[in-house]
Amino acid sequence: MRNKSIWTKKDLLGLEYLSSEEIELILYTAASFKEVTTRQIKKVPALRGKTVVNLFYEPSTRTRTSFELAAKRLSADVINIAVESSSVKKGETLIDTGKNIEALKIDTIVVRHGSSGAPHILARSVASSVVNAGDGWHEHPTQALLDMFTLKEKLGRIEGLKVSIIGDIAHSRVARSNIWGLTKLGAKVTVCAPGILIPEGIERLGVKTTTDLDEALHDADAINVLRMQFERDTAVAFPSKLEYFKQYGITTDRLAKCKKDIVVMHPGPINRGVEMSSEVADGKNSVILEQVTNGIAVRMAVLYLVSVAKDAQK
Amino acid sequence: MRNKSIWTKKDLLGLEYLSSEEIELILYTAASFKEVTTRQIKKVPALRGKTVVNLFYEPSTRTRTSFELAAKRLSADVINIAVESSSVKKGETLIDTGKNIEALKIDTIVVRHGSSGAPHILARSVASSVVNAGDGWHEHPTQALLDMFTLKEKLGRIEGLKVSIIGDIAHSRVARSNIWGLTKLGAKVTVCAPGILIPEGIERLGVKTTTDLDEALHDADAINVLRMQFERDTAVAFPSKLEYFKQYGITTDRLAKCKKDIVVMHPGPINRGVEMSSEVADGKNSVILEQVTNGIAVRMAVLYLVSVAKDAQK
Amino acid sequence: MRNKSIWTKKDLLGLEYLSSEEIELILYTAASFKEVTTRQIKKVPALRGKTVVNLFYEPSTRTRTSFELAAKRLSADVINIAVESSSVKKGETLIDTGKNIEALKIDTIVVRHGSSGAPHILARSVASSVVNAGDGWHEHPTQALLDMFTLKEKLGRIEGLKVSIIGDIAHSRVARSNIWGLTKLGAKVTVCAPGILIPEGIERLGVKTTTDLDEALHDADAINVLRMQFERDTAVAFPSKLEYFKQYGITTDRLAKCKKDIVVMHPGPINRGVEMSSEVADGKNSVILEQVTNGIAVRMAVLYLVSVAKDAQK
Repeated sequence: MRNKSIWTKKDLLGLEYLSSEEIELILYTAASFKEVTTRQIKKVPALRGKTVVNLFYEPSTRTRTSFELAAKRLSADVINIAVESSSVKKGETLIDTGKNIEALKIDTIVVRHGSSGAPHILARSVASSVVNAGDGWHEHPTQALLDMFTLKEKLGRIEGLKVSIIGDIAHSRVARSNIWGLTKLGAKVTVCAPGILIPEGIERLGVKTTTDLDEALHDADAINVLRMQFERDTAVAFPSKLEYFKQYGITTDRLAKCKKDIVVMHPGPINRGVEMSSEVADGKNSVILEQVTNGIAVRMAVLYLVSVAKDAQK
Repeated sequence: MRNKSIWTKKDLLGLEYLSSEEIELILYTAASFKEVTTRQIKKVPALRGKTVVNLFYEPSTRTRTSFELAAKRLSADVINIAVESSSVKKGETLIDTGKNIEALKIDTIVVRHGSSGAPHILARSVASSVVNAGDGWHEHPTQALLDMFTLKEKLGRIEGLKVSIIGDIAHSRVARSNIWGLTKLGAKVTVCAPGILIPEGIERLGVKTTTDLDEALHDADAINVLRMQFERDTAVAFPSKLEYFKQYGITTDRLAKCKKDIVVMHPGPINRGVEMSSEVADGKNSVILEQVTNGIAVRMAVLYLVSVAKDAQK
Repeated sequence: MRNKSIWTKKDLLGLEYLSSEEIELILYTAASFKEVTTRQIKKVPALRGKTVVNLFYEPSTRTRTSFELAAKRLSADVINIAVESSSVKKGETLIDTGKNIEALKIDTIVVRHGSSGAPHILARSVASSVVNAGDGWHEHPTQALLDMFTLKEKLGRIEGLKVSIIGDIAHSRVARSNIWGLTKLGAKVTVCAPGILIPEGIERLGVKTTTDLDEALHDADAINVLRMQFERDTAVAFPSKLEYFKQYGITTDRLAKCKKDIVVMHPGPINRGVEMSSEVADGKNSVILEQVTNGIAVRMAVLYLVSVAKDAQK
């Protein structure tokens, strides 16, 4: 099936809009790029002479760095634009900013924005490819793709896997993209959180919900543990970090009752002692650092595919 | 004439100091670089192994990005130095900063500074080439060059054109550089603004002045509409954005009375509904985004010419 | 001797941990890289396909720029991570940050940190090479190496030289690294400062101490004059800049009583009129800008050696 599918989209806006074949194609392409990152010379000329702009309306080191590295390892030139120092402050609209970047003959715009749907508006306005690096609470597709890549690498498949996503589902674009991607590839997804952090109607996306951690862990093949952002208002949903850890923190005791080879994922950065203990974060079931490594390969694949598709459309 | 002129200056400080032949040479060189930016591989090896520093004492995304891209498309290495995080805060003088950058064996310093004349001081102090990316209210030569490049591309010539510059002339380095450049190439320039925003004695630069927008538009071949910076003190010159728009804003109604092919330019970012309506900004006479595209080509030309001249002097 | 020594360390943490042979090897390697920076094409492919991260927990333009340039002239890709915008703010530990960077398959991490020993913790935690770009008041090894490189270039040797380090010894990582390096290569080091700025027990590192500037200058072959940081609390040790200049400032009058060819160094940025007069800073004995030039060569050597050593260990 993979060999038959060809990537035709100029943008990557979210997993909601991809077919299972397209998702498989990204994962398949990422696998070949992963090999590149293990070489002593970690660079291929695939995007030489292309330009990628990282347009970040929210501060981010991890995702920005990962995209920057992915682009550089494809030999693209990279320009970082952070909103703080940008003309956005001068009241320029997102579309005007996009039109200006397009006029600079930029091939791909990687955009992070606080508002859901911002990358879609941008994508409709410009001929450049647009890659969503996180929009509001909506989607963070490359994070979900790297999670799925890691799962597949560890467990050989995604279809039929039982995956529990644990934590602040309500405010998590990572959760939402994982739900779209995993269900499309045939995984069974459970989301688990204190009731107030489970968005109403989420079941319609094809997931089970529970407030009971034991139930979420019971026969899971993998868990994806989200960061609790106690620094933001929404965290008042829970009295304290310690309370949260007691009820929802992943510990070795709890893991002991799970499947022996359960895969433990986390998008990082970890709050040690909040959503999981240090023993779990650094333990044998954790693939957290492998996720980081795989993020480069997945982003290389995405940047490569959208660029090829865009050039083909000309 | 063009073929006979050779660029010999190590710096580009302002259009005041250039001959018409030198300006023509930059525009001519830019034309060949513009072709590069339309290729799928938008890169030439002209400045491989050279280093360009963007030394910005004022925040700027647009101009910095344009220079960064221009340098990278010439295969130069680029280092960005923003004043905020720099040792300038530790009280280092501009000359000491320049001497230190020179000691790093930097080929070209692109400098933006709040004080008029700062690039000149720098240029006298260092062997590196210095390119003025905007100094106080003095000059912004590459902006004027890209405006002229765009004009020539649209209208085939600059000599004899009637160009009106509309807006806050008093505090505009863009206006000043355009006046120098356009008059040297034989255009007839009118500046139009509320009286308080027309600097006294500007006529000595060879321009007509008027406070009457209709007069400025009447038989203009092109208009260059400046950004009204209501965020700064000088804007108290005008009661409100709405008042300004009413009297000086460019609208489709006003354009309807102009020459049919009048070229509408703006250095960006646009205040939609202040200095022009959205219909005009996005309309058929607007070349605003082409200006952005041409900015890369013009800056490639400037970086290339000063670098070649500097190497020839060794 | 040089030809026999081979660099085997994956990290450069401080001169305290290096043998004199290792220091000589760095200086020897730097000499060949210095030649590169004098070419019109200032670039060699030595680290092509490698990635260097500048991880700066303290703001720095000079050192960061120097490392960035060194890496780029070796054809490495460079990613800058400044703490201000990084997930460090989200409470991530240094080790977690390091592990994440390692997972990105970064070859070398250049780290500056406010805490002494931070680079050592990082180096033990990751397979990537770690280069100390300044840790607390502990070490700033590449600064001392470039000082020694400059000394050797000027005076032909280091062994037997009399070098005085003048200024705030107590809070200077530059002083400490110079002391380790110079004494290992056989120089005689004197440190000179107001009593309160000489750390107790510093003599155990093999240096003479004095509070008398004339004594420190008397038969010195070279002086290394440190920056007085009046912007920080510790400066209350001295009543005013003027007082300091009167007692410890280097002036042409004072230099007149020194050896004719005395070499005057300063790590920059200079406080003109505080630790030295402008005449001295710009005078014939000053090698301050040559230090800046040599900094690139020394950092190229360090980045190259640790990278080769790390690859050899695989």
